[in-house]
Amino acid sequence: MKKVITFGEILLRLSTERHLRFSQATNFNATYGGGEFNVAVSLANYGLETEFVTRLPKNDIGDCALQEIRKQNVSTANIQFGGDRLGIYFLETGAGTRGSKVVYDRASSAIAQIEPSSIDWKSIFKDADWFHWSGVTPAISSNAAAVCLEAVKAAHAMGITISSDLNYRSKLWKYGKEPKDIMPELLKYSHVILGDLDTAFFMTGQEKQDPDYQDMESLPQLYDLLYKSAPDLKYVATTLRYSINASHQKIGGILYDGKDIYYAKTREVTPVVDRVGSGDAFMGGLIYGLLNDDLDKQGTIDFAAAACCLKHTITGDFNLASIAEIEQLAGGDSSGKVSR
Amino acid sequence: MKKVITFGEILLRLSTERHLRFSQATNFNATYGGGEFNVAVSLANYGLETEFVTRLPKNDIGDCALQEIRKQNVSTANIQFGGDRLGIYFLETGAGTRGSKVVYDRASSAIAQIEPSSIDWKSIFKDADWFHWSGVTPAISSNAAAVCLEAVKAAHAMGITISSDLNYRSKLWKYGKEPKDIMPELLKYSHVILGDLDTAFFMTGQEKQDPDYQDMESLPQLYDLLYKSAPDLKYVATTLRYSINASHQKIGGILYDGKDIYYAKTREVTPVVDRVGSGDAFMGGLIYGLLNDDLDKQGTIDFAAAACCLKHTITGDFNLASIAEIEQLAGGDSSGKVSR
Amino acid sequence: MKKVITFGEILLRLSTERHLRFSQATNFNATYGGGEFNVAVSLANYGLETEFVTRLPKNDIGDCALQEIRKQNVSTANIQFGGDRLGIYFLETGAGTRGSKVVYDRASSAIAQIEPSSIDWKSIFKDADWFHWSGVTPAISSNAAAVCLEAVKAAHAMGITISSDLNYRSKLWKYGKEPKDIMPELLKYSHVILGDLDTAFFMTGQEKQDPDYQDMESLPQLYDLLYKSAPDLKYVATTLRYSINASHQKIGGILYDGKDIYYAKTREVTPVVDRVGSGDAFMGGLIYGLLNDDLDKQGTIDFAAAACCLKHTITGDFNLASIAEIEQLAGGDSSGKVSR
Amino acid sequence: MKKVITFGEILLRLSTERHLRFSQATNFNATYGGGEFNVAVSLANYGLETEFVTRLPKNDIGDCALQEIRKQNVSTANIQFGGDRLGIYFLETGAGTRGSKVVYDRASSAIAQIEPSSIDWKSIFKDADWFHWSGVTPAISSNAAAVCLEAVKAAHAMGITISSDLNYRSKLWKYGKEPKDIMPELLKYSHVILGDLDTAFFMTGQEKQDPDYQDMESLPQLYDLLYKSAPDLKYVATTLRYSINASHQKIGGILYDGKDIYYAKTREVTPVVDRVGSGDAFMGGLIYGLLNDDLDKQGTIDFAAAACCLKHTITGDFNLASIAEIEQLAGGDSSGKVSR
Amino acid sequence: MKKVITFGEILLRLSTERHLRFSQATNFNATYGGGEFNVAVSLANYGLETEFVTRLPKNDIGDCALQEIRKQNVSTANIQFGGDRLGIYFLETGAGTRGSKVVYDRASSAIAQIEPSSIDWKSIFKDADWFHWSGVTPAISSNAAAVCLEAVKAAHAMGITISSDLNYRSKLWKYGKEPKDIMPELLKYSHVILGDLDTAFFMTGQEKQDPDYQDMESLPQLYDLLYKSAPDLKYVATTLRYSINASHQKIGGILYDGKDIYYAKTREVTPVVDRVGSGDAFMGGLIYGLLNDDLDKQGTIDFAAAACCLKHTITGDFNLASIAEIEQLAGGDSSGKVSR
Amino acid sequence: MKKVITFGEILLRLSTERHLRFSQATNFNATYGGGEFNVAVSLANYGLETEFVTRLPKNDIGDCALQEIRKQNVSTANIQFGGDRLGIYFLETGAGTRGSKVVYDRASSAIAQIEPSSIDWKSIFKDADWFHWSGVTPAISSNAAAVCLEAVKAAHAMGITISSDLNYRSKLWKYGKEPKDIMPELLKYSHVILGDLDTAFFMTGQEKQDPDYQDMESLPQLYDLLYKSAPDLKYVATTLRYSINASHQKIGGILYDGKDIYYAKTREVTPVVDRVGSGDAFMGGLIYGLLNDDLDKQGTIDFAAAACCLKHTITGDFNLASIAEIEQLAGGDSSGKVSR
Repeated sequence: MKKVITFGEILLRLSTERHLRFSQATNFNATYGGGEFNVAVSLANYGLETEFVTRLPKNDIGDCALQEIRKQNVSTANIQFGGDRLGIYFLETGAGTRGSKVVYDRASSAIAQIEPSSIDWKSIFKDADWFHWSGVTPAISSNAAAVCLEAVKAAHAMGITISSDLNYRSKLWKYGKEPKDIMPELLKYSHVILGDLDTAFFMTGQEKQDPDYQDMESLPQLYDLLYKSAPDLKYVATTLRYSINASHQKIGGILYDGKDIYYAKTREVTPVVDRVGSGDAFMGGLIYGLLNDDLDKQGTIDFAAAACCLKHTITGDFNLASIAEIEQLAGGDSSGKVSR
Repeated sequence: MKKVITFGEILLRLSTERHLRFSQATNFNATYGGGEFNVAVSLANYGLETEFVTRLPKNDIGDCALQEIRKQNVSTANIQFGGDRLGIYFLETGAGTRGSKVVYDRASSAIAQIEPSSIDWKSIFKDADWFHWSGVTPAISSNAAAVCLEAVKAAHAMGITISSDLNYRSKLWKYGKEPKDIMPELLKYSHVILGDLDTAFFMTGQEKQDPDYQDMESLPQLYDLLYKSAPDLKYVATTLRYSINASHQKIGGILYDGKDIYYAKTREVTPVVDRVGSGDAFMGGLIYGLLNDDLDKQGTIDFAAAACCLKHTITGDFNLASIAEIEQLAGGDSSGKVSR
Repeated sequence: MKKVITFGEILLRLSTERHLRFSQATNFNATYGGGEFNVAVSLANYGLETEFVTRLPKNDIGDCALQEIRKQNVSTANIQFGGDRLGIYFLETGAGTRGSKVVYDRASSAIAQIEPSSIDWKSIFKDADWFHWSGVTPAISSNAAAVCLEAVKAAHAMGITISSDLNYRSKLWKYGKEPKDIMPELLKYSHVILGDLDTAFFMTGQEKQDPDYQDMESLPQLYDLLYKSAPDLKYVATTLRYSINASHQKIGGILYDGKDIYYAKTREVTPVVDRVGSGDAFMGGLIYGLLNDDLDKQGTIDFAAAACCLKHTITGDFNLASIAEIEQLAGGDSSGKVSR
Repeated sequence: MKKVITFGEILLRLSTERHLRFSQATNFNATYGGGEFNVAVSLANYGLETEFVTRLPKNDIGDCALQEIRKQNVSTANIQFGGDRLGIYFLETGAGTRGSKVVYDRASSAIAQIEPSSIDWKSIFKDADWFHWSGVTPAISSNAAAVCLEAVKAAHAMGITISSDLNYRSKLWKYGKEPKDIMPELLKYSHVILGDLDTAFFMTGQEKQDPDYQDMESLPQLYDLLYKSAPDLKYVATTLRYSINASHQKIGGILYDGKDIYYAKTREVTPVVDRVGSGDAFMGGLIYGLLNDDLDKQGTIDFAAAACCLKHTITGDFNLASIAEIEQLAGGDSSGKVSR
Repeated sequence: MKKVITFGEILLRLSTERHLRFSQATNFNATYGGGEFNVAVSLANYGLETEFVTRLPKNDIGDCALQEIRKQNVSTANIQFGGDRLGIYFLETGAGTRGSKVVYDRASSAIAQIEPSSIDWKSIFKDADWFHWSGVTPAISSNAAAVCLEAVKAAHAMGITISSDLNYRSKLWKYGKEPKDIMPELLKYSHVILGDLDTAFFMTGQEKQDPDYQDMESLPQLYDLLYKSAPDLKYVATTLRYSINASHQKIGGILYDGKDIYYAKTREVTPVVDRVGSGDAFMGGLIYGLLNDDLDKQGTIDFAAAACCLKHTITGDFNLASIAEIEQLAGGDSSGKVSR
Repeated sequence: MKKVITFGEILLRLSTERHLRFSQATNFNATYGGGEFNVAVSLANYGLETEFVTRLPKNDIGDCALQEIRKQNVSTANIQFGGDRLGIYFLETGAGTRGSKVVYDRASSAIAQIEPSSIDWKSIFKDADWFHWSGVTPAISSNAAAVCLEAVKAAHAMGITISSDLNYRSKLWKYGKEPKDIMPELLKYSHVILGDLDTAFFMTGQEKQDPDYQDMESLPQLYDLLYKSAPDLKYVATTLRYSINASHQKIGGILYDGKDIYYAKTREVTPVVDRVGSGDAFMGGLIYGLLNDDLDKQGTIDFAAAACCLKHTITGDFNLASIAEIEQLAGGDSSGKVSR
């Protein structure tokens, strides 16, 4: 069984029920999630061995997060404890023409205060096959960015496959650095990058282009720009999203292997139950496909896109769909019949 | 007032809220339902006199089911008490491309252990006009099948109209018999059969055909095959369902009287609030139409299909729509305006 | 800052959850609302100074309504206390082809028993710019109608802009008068009328016409009929609603200034979370636009229609959308992306 | 099986959860109850045949009440339909030193508007053994009082046992009459009266006394005063309540048969889950005991007091305890061990 | 009407339901509270004019707090907006031998970052009669302590009565100062101090004593020690709490006027619904009594202690008891009878 | 770290909320628990390594149980999958004089159908220190009893300490055997037995005695009777429970080491939040104490009894109290103060 390590922040998610606005809420549903952990949950559900590395505060709220990680069958063996608080995000779920709203409450979180050199990456990566991180972590604090760099360097040195999700969040990046100061050094060890080209060029400080994701002629040249500064880069993937409204999305995907473009055809996603974490579901599907000899490139991008679609029907950050459910949808059956 | 008797199992239904998956549920909504009882509830709501015959365990959960039957204005006069437990089904309500999921938990239920000859059908049918059963009951156990056969024979002997809903559930039928061993003998007393032709041919052990439900030329011949072994058969009806996804169905219907095909035109049903029991709503509408001199054949199939559509908007197994609401929809007004 | 006064009834709203029918409900969500108060809430959210005049019973339920008014930042300075009870309306929220259902429980409400001359309108209107009322209030009782007339006369005498929402509710008007006995006298002081032409002609006792809201040729003539008996009338507006089903509406709007027709283009509204109060949201947007020098007539009707659309996505009677959200939609962005 | 008829009002009860004050409530639990109906529910649970006579509005809320009556296995055969609304009472459940709070919202209720002579008491009482009413009904309106008088006269004429619960509610009696104008005529047909002596003397216009419920010498003389004007009176009973605080009561009872005093010894009731309806539970126990040959007078008052105690542990108006549970407590076992 | 200003932090309170432990919670009830605001709410409920001064973040969660302040009828006229986040406290409500548990999550809160001189106290205090603060605010940060000192100095200069609640929270005070470095300077302007003597001596850096709160001989000498460094000090009060277990408290109080000790007798408080904020309820009662000419010193301490008792029966931080309810309990009636 | 293995059944627990009776419930809280698993959870919380061996069905409900085991930090390494269904128990939580009610729904559960020899006990016990089982498992079916015997024999052979909780449930034992046919053979390998003497004598087929648990003279002789047939027996312990009512218990304990009696003094437990699993909490405390060199015999029984007390304040089957909380109570501090 392949083993995948992910590193990042897990947050307490406090969401209003029944599409209520924040000002109407008298209670919040409490779940836990965070981009890199969400990827680990997908992979654990697909039967891979997974581990999540993070920093949690030593209090009851940190313990709840720890319990959730265990419940999802992800290893907690190398989690560090300390710091002031668990980061929080408040979520108001939109509907129709009203979009969902996220209020970040991440100041002074445990992982923002993580000390460089405090994680023993060598030991963590000993029997690992894959390391996954995303652009959210270096956006939190310079300490978090430094530890992230230690991780990719250690993974690189140990020959472990590295996947990077660009994941740009403009409301983070508040510690005085811009993505282009930090991300190029981190991305250069990547074997797989997930993101759209605009974000990729912005984060790597390259000139803005005008990608047409339907144009199989021009796209390869644009994707190729990312390969220049990442010598190990094998795959770039992009989630294609068309937002009709908050309850209705169209979702497809692209996988580029440095030579050919593979499309997952666009699917209707309506109604949207919860779209947070759908990009992580895509990422999880991508890693699963690339680690799975039974799936070729087309099969991989189809699986990733179908996983992303199904995530939209599931409350919370995690994609709790099974391989069988994803394969059924990837295979073209979107009828949603009752299973009994 | 006409009196209709139905016989079958009533189950405790435990469903997750807000489209949660089973693994996310910390509580279950508890309601009660079962195909033949659901039909009785529809008919009680339409003002008919109804009675439900079943077997319930003598414990608090059985008492809750009993209370629900009374609440729905269905007679409990001939319910038998005994056995280990009330059958349960767990329901996870899907959305969009994710279908709903039913987990049956019916082992050792009270009705599975019912004793042949323990029900006094003669007395039950004394002032009844109609008897309804479905293919779920003979699928439970050989005892349940035997009692079902006693019921149709008694009804036949007493000249009562018999309706049969084929209702094939592959996960039942676990006691060593196949439908074709049991169903033909049961179905041969039918005046009305509800089901699609594939199921009908499979259950009666006939050769598979390839029905085209839009083809008014070939359909009658196929339906006619069912009349051969059921000498009293007057009507066959089929619910037409096209599943766009779990939240979006198209629903129509067919009524065949041995001569002509009557269509209820296909309607959009979106969003689907709860589709469990929608076939029973169709059946209830059909019986109502056939018992009601004010509705001709076209009116009957229109009423049945509109009842089925409205059921999809109602949580739980029962069709709680009123005659007026169904007639409004059957009459073509699907605007769903606020009534105030 | 402009100050707007509204006058009318605030009700306790008891609604079933999760689309449950009344007969399935074991609890009710309790909120508060009423047409004229809903307009005040919209305007308070847009930053205007607002005040709501009403009559509340001196009991705990009346106190809850009072607290809600304060919470919404609407002045309670001139609320009168007394009477038997707070009016109630029960709401069952429909879905798809099943419409929502309102059961009024307003007999003997505090405002129905209000005494003429008991409100000091002169003092209330001292520093006010705008007075808004609707056709619901005169429908409650002859006392309520009398006080409403005192209000419009006082507003007229003091030169305050008066807006009138026709708001016809056939299940009210039970005290022996018809709209045409009461409404013409009330409407004649209007500067702004909101309503469709059928209702306007019915309430003013004029002959039924057959308006085509897409016909820019014939419409002005019909709207002009309303100007005859209302010498100060400047604007008439109409909400355009096309009800596909209870979960899917199309919403547009018309503003007529006595000369030209301004259209807000029709928008898809799906899913509908809660459509009660959407007309009040339109009215609130209209008053905001007319009081706001930055919005021209086209901008005003676009804002009003977009406010109405967004209201459909919000639970409860109030439009809790912000100016920024409404402007984004009015400006054409209905993508409902996550804000984070 | 003995048959008991009760007559009165059933209300929608809207209660806050978790001891919340009204001003904190965002939803209400909705149940149904009313003194005379509560008595019928107790008796139905004890296996007697019961029927409740009342007037319900023809709307969805009235239908919900009707459904609840059926669910509780009480006959609805002679319920009258009409009127504006179902009466409501709001309940805030206290704790410790904070008492529970009831806000009546009963103006214009269906039963307040009942027409004299509109109920066919002769037919209702044909096969009945017992009629029960309480002092709440004549307090509602003069019409309700008139129908109540028709009922007791008919019951008297037909030789049916009549029980009367004094049930004084000072906030009712608002139609211009005092209890002493109405109650003596009604009470004079009683075979059984439940109430404390202060209330009895007040309602019958007699001089205030100072009863000492522990004094077996003086009590009989005081109870005897009630026998003077009620020639058929056989039993008077009193619930003994000592309120330590809202969560802690002491409950006992007295039964007087015109000769001897029978005491049910005082029991600790803590915590109190819900004390509304505990007097009705006492009344139900009393009727059960008096109709049951197996219970002598001491057994009857012990059963009634134990039923009253157990009611305090049950949410809602009804005493849902079984005969076995009540007999266990009446027999002295208050250990509350887990039954499994 | 007297006007009272309070200054401090308002927090989002996230509490588990039904006595669940944090690790069992899947949702949190969301309310708002904070010592000084809680006092303002009590006083607003008693009919005084009140205003709360604080700093709130400009985001949806800050807006919710703002709305709650308005709902409670407390003026928001001088609230400052800015900073990262609203402070949070998580609450797990204990029962019996298991105590409640608070997890503070207040790092980087808006008020911790408040700028000295940024509040215009002169304008705020212009028509005020009383200023209240507590020892929580100077514990948050040195900036918060500095602004608190500005407030008491301004109030002192303007001749406004100042009350100080010692309120020691050991888990705060993390910015490098101890209470004895900060509190003496703040306390010296007090007219009224609430606290126990141990805390008072600790915070003012005085030697530990061993107070016996039942000893009327020795107590005055100990209280007198506080008067030395606070020249305007008139009253010192102490809440007497005896904790039998988390669900059972005994509550009394002491008021000392520099000469005599006034006792409020100890009352049983069981069950405890929620004890958070009970000290603030005491403080609110104390201020009310001292501002109210109708209450003498004994009446004042009785009112304060009864308010504290009643708070224990109310969920949330606020004492939502009315004057009438408190006076009833202060007058000795703790029977908790149903009010109807 | 010591490792403890437990073996038995884990059930889905469906409990009504807010003390509702079954007939009032419209939803059930869903948790998981079972005597032997509950013991494992206690020990995992105390920091021991634990593993639970059981049989789960391969369906979504079985998966939920699996997830719960992981969440509680108990190893799932040797769980067997198969069988029809997960056993269920329905729980109605009593209050005061009304006891809680359990309805078992365990027919055809996965573990009832477990095959002898299907568990590899040797491998499971390889690095284990302790094995715990209870009398519930052999009561389920003869297969379950057989596997239980295999386990104790294997543990005995490998020199592992064995603890046995007698746990008599009369409603189980339905497969034709009585405890005395099965239990003696199982118990004879015990090192520690938990139970009261009546149960012990009944289960081992010995003559009924009349133990007086306060009598230090006679008790040792009675306990000594158990040592005769269990050659390795070192300790017998008994939970002392005095049930005042369902909400008020008194709890103490006895530990006998074959020579001396050690008492944990009786403590008041009120209110009782949930008493299910309190015996397992006692057992968990006992094992912890006996495995912990820092606790002597008196310390061990004090810890066990305090753990049992605290469990009564916690919802669900598990004792989620920490070592620190238990030690605080065992040390005599039952004040339940707020921890903040």
